[in-house]
Amino acid sequence: MTERLSDAARRAWLRLARTENVGPVTFDQLIVRYTTAARALEALPELARRGGRPIRLATEADADAELAAGEALGAQLICACEGDFPQALAALDPPPPLIWVRGRPELLDQSCVAIVGARVASAAGQRFARGLASELGQAGQVIVSGLARGIDAAAHEGGMPTGTVAVLGGGVDDIYPPEHASLYARIAEQGCVVSESEPGRTAVARDFPRRNRIISGLSRAVVVVEAEFRSGSLITARLAAEQGREVLAVPGSPLDPRAKGTNDLIRQGAAICEGAEDVLRALEGPRGFREPERTPYVTGGAGEPDEALREAVAALLSPTPVSRDEIVRATGAPAPLVFAALVELSLAGRCELLSGGMVATA
Amino acid sequence: MTERLSDAARRAWLRLARTENVGPVTFDQLIVRYTTAARALEALPELARRGGRPIRLATEADADAELAAGEALGAQLICACEGDFPQALAALDPPPPLIWVRGRPELLDQSCVAIVGARVASAAGQRFARGLASELGQAGQVIVSGLARGIDAAAHEGGMPTGTVAVLGGGVDDIYPPEHASLYARIAEQGCVVSESEPGRTAVARDFPRRNRIISGLSRAVVVVEAEFRSGSLITARLAAEQGREVLAVPGSPLDPRAKGTNDLIRQGAAICEGAEDVLRALEGPRGFREPERTPYVTGGAGEPDEALREAVAALLSPTPVSRDEIVRATGAPAPLVFAALVELSLAGRCELLSGGMVATA
Repeated sequence: MTERLSDAARRAWLRLARTENVGPVTFDQLIVRYTTAARALEALPELARRGGRPIRLATEADADAELAAGEALGAQLICACEGDFPQALAALDPPPPLIWVRGRPELLDQSCVAIVGARVASAAGQRFARGLASELGQAGQVIVSGLARGIDAAAHEGGMPTGTVAVLGGGVDDIYPPEHASLYARIAEQGCVVSESEPGRTAVARDFPRRNRIISGLSRAVVVVEAEFRSGSLITARLAAEQGREVLAVPGSPLDPRAKGTNDLIRQGAAICEGAEDVLRALEGPRGFREPERTPYVTGGAGEPDEALREAVAALLSPTPVSRDEIVRATGAPAPLVFAALVELSLAGRCELLSGGMVATA
Repeated sequence: MTERLSDAARRAWLRLARTENVGPVTFDQLIVRYTTAARALEALPELARRGGRPIRLATEADADAELAAGEALGAQLICACEGDFPQALAALDPPPPLIWVRGRPELLDQSCVAIVGARVASAAGQRFARGLASELGQAGQVIVSGLARGIDAAAHEGGMPTGTVAVLGGGVDDIYPPEHASLYARIAEQGCVVSESEPGRTAVARDFPRRNRIISGLSRAVVVVEAEFRSGSLITARLAAEQGREVLAVPGSPLDPRAKGTNDLIRQGAAICEGAEDVLRALEGPRGFREPERTPYVTGGAGEPDEALREAVAALLSPTPVSRDEIVRATGAPAPLVFAALVELSLAGRCELLSGGMVATA
């Protein structure tokens, strides 16, 4: 892990991350294979051509524009290989390649608890979230949430005096909903705003899974307060469970539709949260100690897959996600070669590398 | 199991059950040892004398008075060895020696679900209990509860059209609270009222554990709707779990003190109940099929413990309950002899035989 990247290395890292078809899994595989983003960028056109389709790299001008936009906001870019990248995010498999932050990034390396929930929340639910955030804050936890209406806003308010982190789907300057402008300003001043998107970007639906993955990834525990059945907070809870984080849910009456999602989480094994002590107790449990999903950026050499292997791999894929290990077994080829072939196919848009080691046709 | 007892045998059974220091465990041991209540009554004075203290037997006049009182109410006495004793109760270890019933005892051998909860219940909780009872009733379940204020009354109301059973701590004619007189009358007419106590008895605190044990014992599942921390419904839930019945609890907001007990049950492993389908699903599970805790009244011979064994057993007892098996192991004597010694000590008031095979000094 590098202490800080040089300006040139940072620009290359940013270009690689913003290049089309380069998701976090592909990014990760490329860095492992080529050691630096600059070398990966050099190799990309040939890799994509082998995969079967040309690729348009993000240009130096694109990167410079993004860096300038961030600088104008007083925001800071932190790359996943840098020493000040939050450890909890660096331990994800794969980590987000980079984050933009405003405010106090040092909060991200403290012990964090996410509090998320319904946008259309009851007054009681908001009061509970605010009180829970306040008590957890006083117990030394940084409160992470998503700046949304309802539970998120209440959690940020409760955590404001002791430290709160807002993770956005759009750029670090994308204030949504607009009535949270003052809340946003206080978090950017006293807390920390985080985003994986480029500054100036307005969030669209497909940005929220990545936003939610950072919310849970930063946090040792995720508490869901009020959530209807099939709501977004439940996705954050699922991601948290996959990341080995503690998941807690606040129970509610079966007569309250906003308790359907949380009661269902409890059915599925989430711990019951009736107050801060439940969260603090969960943090003492075996999952409370963060176990990294992977070692941050240890690079190892990989060979070059030939045309035959690449097409054999492509033929094994379908829209149903399978594990990369399964593809390795099916081909009988060495794992690094198969992974390299998958990266080439993904760059050509012929497959999608999913987190959790899964792969499917794009 | 006898089809019906003769009048004389019934009177003996009743006398034995009403004799001082004869709880259900001692009763059970005596029937196993002496085969009939009449023979057990004959042996009792000598057994108690060996235990170290004389005993006052319930008289024939006592039994006749109780039988007359029951008859005057139109109530029916059913002894645990009789063919029409509810199978679910006969399978308890030990079973209640007898029950008095008014109304339709045939309901007791149908599939029953208990719904219990707070006396000071919210309007929403009562509405939920009534609706749950109604839906379960329509699905063929008989609703069992305790005639108390709040959740119990709502459960009986919901179950009234399809069949409901009220289990009382006092006699079958002990209407408490008084404002439930009309509810009681409808249950005695359309449903069934059950009690282990003698007719005319007003319930006192120590009657409720036996009442609760019959509520859970009759039922394949117990649902707790609203219960404060350390409330009586939680005892019924514990008994149900010990008896191998399904336990379900209705979750509620941490801001509602009446959800403390039910949320705590869920923490301890109770299933979440958000509606009738959760209960019906639980009944399909492995516990849904009633597994008898014991074979009803299979008698086997036991020897006679001598003075030395009896005192060795007495010396092993303390106020801390231990299992009878542990006493057997500690003495090294044959189990039937040790059990017989314990019965003698219990008749003399020197120990208490508890359900679940435990024993302690009285």
